[in-house]
Amino acid sequence: WLGRGEPPAAALGRAPGGGLRTLRGHFDRKSCGGTPGPRRCPRGLWLPCRGIRVGYTPDVLTDATAELSVALLLAACRRLPEAAEQVKTGGWTTWKPLWMCGFGLSDSTVGIIGLGRIGQAVARRLKPFGVRRFLYTGSRPKPEAAAEFGAEFGELAQESDFVVVTCALTPATQGMCNKDFFSKMKKTSVFINTSRGAVVNQEDLYDALAHGQIAAAGLDVTTPEPLPADHPLLSLKNCVILPHIGSATYATRTTMAVLAANNLLAGLRGEPMPHELLL
Amino acid sequence: WLGRGEPPAAALGRAPGGGLRTLRGHFDRKSCGGTPGPRRCPRGLWLPCRGIRVGYTPDVLTDATAELSVALLLAACRRLPEAAEQVKTGGWTTWKPLWMCGFGLSDSTVGIIGLGRIGQAVARRLKPFGVRRFLYTGSRPKPEAAAEFGAEFGELAQESDFVVVTCALTPATQGMCNKDFFSKMKKTSVFINTSRGAVVNQEDLYDALAHGQIAAAGLDVTTPEPLPADHPLLSLKNCVILPHIGSATYATRTTMAVLAANNLLAGLRGEPMPHELLL
Repeated sequence: WLGRGEPPAAALGRAPGGGLRTLRGHFDRKSCGGTPGPRRCPRGLWLPCRGIRVGYTPDVLTDATAELSVALLLAACRRLPEAAEQVKTGGWTTWKPLWMCGFGLSDSTVGIIGLGRIGQAVARRLKPFGVRRFLYTGSRPKPEAAAEFGAEFGELAQESDFVVVTCALTPATQGMCNKDFFSKMKKTSVFINTSRGAVVNQEDLYDALAHGQIAAAGLDVTTPEPLPADHPLLSLKNCVILPHIGSATYATRTTMAVLAANNLLAGLRGEPMPHELLL
Repeated sequence: WLGRGEPPAAALGRAPGGGLRTLRGHFDRKSCGGTPGPRRCPRGLWLPCRGIRVGYTPDVLTDATAELSVALLLAACRRLPEAAEQVKTGGWTTWKPLWMCGFGLSDSTVGIIGLGRIGQAVARRLKPFGVRRFLYTGSRPKPEAAAEFGAEFGELAQESDFVVVTCALTPATQGMCNKDFFSKMKKTSVFINTSRGAVVNQEDLYDALAHGQIAAAGLDVTTPEPLPADHPLLSLKNCVILPHIGSATYATRTTMAVLAANNLLAGLRGEPMPHELLL
């Protein structure tokens, strides 16, 4: 199960006999059988009822995803794909004062939607670029996490030069970056989403980018995934779209694989898993 | 004068009467009339002899160039242009464990050639990405600058996961990143140059990239500039080439313009310039 189509409860319900299933995706309560529990975990009552044990690979992708978020932000604000294209197509000629200029991070205000593990890791990496001020939103203030960056809690669309979305997808965040949100943003601002595609209303983002309501966007996640190659967002010069490669480093994927294998071996031996979701 | 063709001494020698000339480029002693002086300044004796005053715009591009260096490093090591291309051409299909994986900065060794203002600004930005160790080379050790990063002075090709070139172009650095240098680098390493194209032997870099001697490269500077659109380096997936946009942010270019205008106004009034090269 790859986080698309039927939720894991339904998929596992049809699984014949015992065996191994791999689950990947952003689990919500509905997909987990309706039982409250940690948002990202398949914790529905149906699992223990069936004698199914669940191993997982916690925290391994925080660094890689935060790194990719910063990479995408810099690529969008400094117009890297567009500039590289100019080299290939002969658009690079003599020096011109404002050619291929972008908006840098020096003295900027960065707004982070969702100051969780990844959001904090993004802020930590952005700080030495000369960010002047951090703002954040979320389901509740996180004074301890915010203290490291002097981040202020509250509405951030109006004042941010960069908006980075690193929140979970929940009913509260679904479609929250919409026409109303983009209309509040600065014309010179840059929007980055590395969380889940459905947090963004893509039609509204297209309009905002096409009409210069915001300067640029970078998306590592879309709706659907993969995004059709003829999607209107792909026609925009000021929109950088990546194929959900947040965790795509050899080191991270190897660490995930080793953790998963060790969980599996322990499970097969009937021992406690090194990282087991205790239901 | 844009740093290409005839040096400014010769160009100014032909300039009729008084007036204003703009000079842009990386000045060396030869271009400045042969008189020893700061490497980046047109300080030849011919200038005061002719009653020519020189205004300049010091330090304004450090932040923008360091930012672009990190942007380029991340784009190269996380394969952003290649991944974005996959989205556009339909190469993004289902999830595959090692598809579009790159080499991240976590727990890496970064080698910086030239720990000057820009090199230090690059190191400062890279540090929170989890860099384990910094190495550097240069004409001499810089213990004070190095202390901030615990950077060690000396040979860095063998041990670095990332090599970032931020040194000046001098007879000592011209062509220093050559076959011999690349052959010492790790097969998983990433090479970044944002200083001057001539520091790199591009034929040797092409061979190293094409034969997997190093993993990837990112260049913001080339020989010549602009690089011809049919240059072999542009045919490589693992080489990201930008059109010399290190200082290309609206804020930096505006600051440069204002400083230059204030120098000019002071010069026209016969007053000391806010930033005058005193010869």
